[in-house]
Amino acid sequence: MRISEVVLTPIAFPDPPLLNSAGVHQPWALRTIVELRCGDGLTGIGETYGDAPHLRLLETAAPHLVGLDPFDTNGLLSRVRQALGVVDVPDRHGLTGGSSPQKTVLRVFSPFEVACLDLQGKLIGRPVVDLLGGKVRDEVAFSAYLFYKWAKHPADGSPDEYGEALDPPGIVAQARHLVDRYGFRSIKLKGGVFPPHEEVEAIRALRAEFPGLPLRLDPNAAWSVPTSLEIAEQTAGLLEYLEDPTPGIDGMAQVAREAPMPLATNMCVVSPDDLAPGFAAGCVGVVLADHHYWGGLRRSAELAAICRTWGVGVSMHSNSHLGISLAAMTHLGGALPELTYAADTHTPWQYGVDVLTEPLSIVDGTVRVPGKPGLGVDLDPDALARLHENYLRCGITERDDTSYMRTFDPTYERRRPRW
Amino acid sequence: MRISEVVLTPIAFPDPPLLNSAGVHQPWALRTIVELRCGDGLTGIGETYGDAPHLRLLETAAPHLVGLDPFDTNGLLSRVRQALGVVDVPDRHGLTGGSSPQKTVLRVFSPFEVACLDLQGKLIGRPVVDLLGGKVRDEVAFSAYLFYKWAKHPADGSPDEYGEALDPPGIVAQARHLVDRYGFRSIKLKGGVFPPHEEVEAIRALRAEFPGLPLRLDPNAAWSVPTSLEIAEQTAGLLEYLEDPTPGIDGMAQVAREAPMPLATNMCVVSPDDLAPGFAAGCVGVVLADHHYWGGLRRSAELAAICRTWGVGVSMHSNSHLGISLAAMTHLGGALPELTYAADTHTPWQYGVDVLTEPLSIVDGTVRVPGKPGLGVDLDPDALARLHENYLRCGITERDDTSYMRTFDPTYERRRPRW
Repeated sequence: MRISEVVLTPIAFPDPPLLNSAGVHQPWALRTIVELRCGDGLTGIGETYGDAPHLRLLETAAPHLVGLDPFDTNGLLSRVRQALGVVDVPDRHGLTGGSSPQKTVLRVFSPFEVACLDLQGKLIGRPVVDLLGGKVRDEVAFSAYLFYKWAKHPADGSPDEYGEALDPPGIVAQARHLVDRYGFRSIKLKGGVFPPHEEVEAIRALRAEFPGLPLRLDPNAAWSVPTSLEIAEQTAGLLEYLEDPTPGIDGMAQVAREAPMPLATNMCVVSPDDLAPGFAAGCVGVVLADHHYWGGLRRSAELAAICRTWGVGVSMHSNSHLGISLAAMTHLGGALPELTYAADTHTPWQYGVDVLTEPLSIVDGTVRVPGKPGLGVDLDPDALARLHENYLRCGITERDDTSYMRTFDPTYERRRPRW
Repeated sequence: MRISEVVLTPIAFPDPPLLNSAGVHQPWALRTIVELRCGDGLTGIGETYGDAPHLRLLETAAPHLVGLDPFDTNGLLSRVRQALGVVDVPDRHGLTGGSSPQKTVLRVFSPFEVACLDLQGKLIGRPVVDLLGGKVRDEVAFSAYLFYKWAKHPADGSPDEYGEALDPPGIVAQARHLVDRYGFRSIKLKGGVFPPHEEVEAIRALRAEFPGLPLRLDPNAAWSVPTSLEIAEQTAGLLEYLEDPTPGIDGMAQVAREAPMPLATNMCVVSPDDLAPGFAAGCVGVVLADHHYWGGLRRSAELAAICRTWGVGVSMHSNSHLGISLAAMTHLGGALPELTYAADTHTPWQYGVDVLTEPLSIVDGTVRVPGKPGLGVDLDPDALARLHENYLRCGITERDDTSYMRTFDPTYERRRPRW
């Protein structure tokens, strides 16, 4: 059984005007759907970023995968590495930290590895979680992921179901909506948008409304070290963890030494080369694993093992994604004893749009680990074609929250730290 | 498919009078053979230590494994941990470093994990190497493992085929025998037996006789820090690595800072809790993985990933073992890109005695990674029964090189460091 064909389909799907420290989400979010076909209708699927430079790398690697045994993920990594050579393709939005040739290779490898595990599972009649050591939990917990947002994209007349959220009451209303609908049992607020004391007020309002739920705040490195320390002190006892308050390992380490809560990161420890210096500096208490750039599910499990060994916690990071990524995250989360925090997901922000026949559901804040072979989800070819049509006509080929914000506010600048 | 029966068979097989820093090998080496049976003749096999305290722990864990899915190695670890509680069972010979409750659990877990992977492979028709990410090499290199030794066990009249080796010419003759017969392309000398300068002479004699082969010396922590530094200087340019010259992370770190060659260890970094302090101290350049106490093949692969991430090399350690362990080491070595050193094995010292129908062979210093499902080796029930008979009549229930040495030299003491 060998891979006979690699199909890459860039897609676009509607994305709400979510605000962050880099600007605002464009009307369309991009992804690439990966299909590894083995003949006889057997196909493994994966999902990754859709930005043009990344898509070009996927296209560079794809022809080299023909003939590969889907169990040979070591061979897969070699082939990807060889096909790419030494390249360093950063993401323009800069919301997942710095880039490196190492991170670039692992990011390109990831969707192919997930698709190989999907194939392996289908071949042997086992869910992917069994290929990762077996289920340690039946459901994986996800957190409500709150965003400051506009009521609608300015150039488009239709407001979304979530409405505006630009102050503490708006954030609390959004949280209520998400918690009531999905049953989330922890809450994360994407910050770095307004002056820090306003975001602290939003956290206080959330605490008052949801006294029992763990809260997190993620300003995406928008704060200086002194600001971070001040906010950390003000939010003592309020936050489960404070995520990437400030840029870089050194800055984070300075904050970590005095902050009363653990710091989490998906910006300063983002690839294997960051682990030794990051852990030596004591810069984080929690790493937000993301299989999309840590090199797939087995490398993310390795990351969790490293975190376990160094006494660092594990949570999961998310960018805008669809159901293949949610399924992959759920299998991974189902197999990791180390995952003691609810994972992030953008799923509710995608309004049910998906490329799957039956996307997994979030119930009581959790997703049940699928028991079917492979990832346990199936591509809907019609939906895939529609979302590819979106891609072709949406005019966006690379995520760029900053430029999009500048179309409304020409004076807007991305600054880290901003406060 | 569930585990329906767990069979543990302690065995004994002849062992030559090999000398080390703890004394001398007894006439019989002990192992335990693990069989996980799933009905329909399907059985997974593993091999581990045979010492009585360890055997008792295996017996304690065994009944808890009935009903387990062989893909659920996470569940296996939980069950072993729960069955054992917090226990710390050191090995009496002390040749694999300190012990801890963590190491004890991983040591008991290991043969069951290997047997589960053997079962998984048999169930899906794939070699174990494929369950570890696929083959990165077709053959795994092993090193010639030289020992100072007596011509025969004093109480037993029959000399073995290797003869005496108590000085440089004896060591060179032994090396020649091993290299000619097995094609080994690197050589390790077990030291810590004679005053260090005599062992350096043996290394010099080996270098003269085998100018192209990498050499290693392992005194099993028999030297003080000053002695280690002196010998490291004397052997500059002669050794591929120097293994465990002195006890403990601190001592090793002191030596590592000045030694001209990398230090390797299977004595000071021997369980997950040692990794952070060991690597922070810079105590070693090479970790000798040993799946028997690092918790099976997947945990050993995790260890290799950690070493890769921290820039530390990986080799493999061996105690007296038979063919199931050799097969497990070969599958692991076949899947680890990080294994850039030839692995240790005691195989030649076991004179072809084994529990397998067809043990793997060492040819050109390597073992070919089996392509058959599972480990690719089969138990020979008659051989197993014979070796179990040995166990019942040999009178040894725990390896104790020091006490055995004292029967010939009542003044003998185990001291670390000795020089």
